[in-house]
Amino acid sequence: PDRHAIASARARQAQLTKPAGSLGRLEEIAIFLAGWQGRERPEIARARAAIFAGNHGVTVHGISAFPSEVTVQMVRNFQAGGAAINALATAAGLELHVEALDLDQPTSDFTAAPAMSEAECLSALSRGAAAVDPGLDLLAVGEMGIGNSTVAAALCARSLGGSAAHWTGPGTGVDDAGIARKIAVIEKALAFHANAPMTPFETLRRVGGREIVAIAGAIIAARHAGIPVVLDGFISCSAIAPVAAAFPAITEHCIAGHRSAEPGHIRLLDRLCLRPLLDLDMRLGEGSGAAVAVTVIRSALAAHNGMATFAEAGVSGA
Amino acid sequence: PDRHAIASARARQAQLTKPAGSLGRLEEIAIFLAGWQGRERPEIARARAAIFAGNHGVTVHGISAFPSEVTVQMVRNFQAGGAAINALATAAGLELHVEALDLDQPTSDFTAAPAMSEAECLSALSRGAAAVDPGLDLLAVGEMGIGNSTVAAALCARSLGGSAAHWTGPGTGVDDAGIARKIAVIEKALAFHANAPMTPFETLRRVGGREIVAIAGAIIAARHAGIPVVLDGFISCSAIAPVAAAFPAITEHCIAGHRSAEPGHIRLLDRLCLRPLLDLDMRLGEGSGAAVAVTVIRSALAAHNGMATFAEAGVSGA
Repeated sequence: PDRHAIASARARQAQLTKPAGSLGRLEEIAIFLAGWQGRERPEIARARAAIFAGNHGVTVHGISAFPSEVTVQMVRNFQAGGAAINALATAAGLELHVEALDLDQPTSDFTAAPAMSEAECLSALSRGAAAVDPGLDLLAVGEMGIGNSTVAAALCARSLGGSAAHWTGPGTGVDDAGIARKIAVIEKALAFHANAPMTPFETLRRVGGREIVAIAGAIIAARHAGIPVVLDGFISCSAIAPVAAAFPAITEHCIAGHRSAEPGHIRLLDRLCLRPLLDLDMRLGEGSGAAVAVTVIRSALAAHNGMATFAEAGVSGA
Repeated sequence: PDRHAIASARARQAQLTKPAGSLGRLEEIAIFLAGWQGRERPEIARARAAIFAGNHGVTVHGISAFPSEVTVQMVRNFQAGGAAINALATAAGLELHVEALDLDQPTSDFTAAPAMSEAECLSALSRGAAAVDPGLDLLAVGEMGIGNSTVAAALCARSLGGSAAHWTGPGTGVDDAGIARKIAVIEKALAFHANAPMTPFETLRRVGGREIVAIAGAIIAARHAGIPVVLDGFISCSAIAPVAAAFPAITEHCIAGHRSAEPGHIRLLDRLCLRPLLDLDMRLGEGSGAAVAVTVIRSALAAHNGMATFAEAGVSGA
């Protein structure tokens, strides 16, 4: 980030007609975006919700409340404009970019093989990176993939430690027996891959999934382009966990859009040193929580850029 | 609220293409607004931020970080478009209604007299009620008045019980000595008015202030008109505390827009049985937190009204 722009934005905040600090996180966000956009008055002229979809071989173990066909059905719903993210992206002024990654080729069942070959994993990373248009002022990421809360929990457990149970929750809504199945599947996967190298790439390749790897690629590409990122829920955030385990600074350009109701999410955010902006009991994915957060981020910039200073308004200071 | 509209909205939510309940509080808000607007698909075509300003005799005791002149200066700032609420109301699609209540006539110092005469208190109630246009789909309330966090704490202590210290915080930013002065002033006021009738009107009149009484009038008028209200911070919420102490159902048409950083606010929200939508460390007043909340409320309605059902989208259910 641009230290000079941060200092300028902070100085501007101190002159605006309000008690110092009284806009709380709205001030933080404006200053954060100033740093990443490199200007005292950051703007969101063009922002994108990039939503990635993938299918997972591990669903053969009955780990989701929904059948795998729902992934492609929901992608069609995104394309037809009928999903939550369509409505929420429009409300937040986000262009929607939907990337379906080889839905007819689920990953391998990672309890018995790496989920992806090296070429497949690289391809997913590249497709995620390609979704990051350098002209964007802000990127929100999201996902769709039946079974992927199990994948997310496996990624967290392998890269950050902690038991499978620590990272496992109901996802879209499985019952206690379903949670027990998820935990058993993750434990089996962790054991199967225990002796493989603990690099970010190998963890993503072995226990990840295409849409999640694509999100990792998008977050890294946004960092290279200096574009701030709004993260969504547990699954989106799990994409960066293997990278953050090795390079904690990788999330410095990221805002945690919200705290999901999925119990692993707040644990993951704590490990990533990210404080969620919203806490609305959402647990949908699709970038839905990130999109709602963007409306708050826009409010933060509206105040930062639009308010008068004490001198301009003729208001006495404290 | 309209029970039939609530049932219809709830049934609609269950058919939208998402796991049941996965939009969390966005679903609750859409159903809540359906009830108060009396239609399955509530809308916000016209929403207003009504901001009331008043001056307080109790400021003679040195209880604020800012001089009293700032109240009128900030009202001019509202009128000129330079304040936080101007930017945040525009970002939230709110029309701004600013009502300055006799700023050249501060209330009496309530440590030694009632803050207002009966006629003055009635006038403030009426002016608040008059700000509620019956054509509104939603009303957000806010305030400006140097010294009014002391007034709010006095209202809470007198109507809900608890010590002056329990309800007192730094407001716009006084130090520990300032907080001690606020507490002493409130204790003196509580003792002075101890034998007066404990009716909502008498509490508002004796230890309230014009802008706060106007907010009470606006909330009550909105209830009569069936218009849902978005509350702001500690001071806005304190306006309804004397009424809620006698008639707890008075806040049923209210959404707590946010949790302010002022420590008394979450205590007051707990007593009012309201759960805040946002928690952004804001403590500005002016309706600023309510305005940001409206952006989230708009997202809730966008999803509720804009999403396809499972049947429409051809998506398999759980």
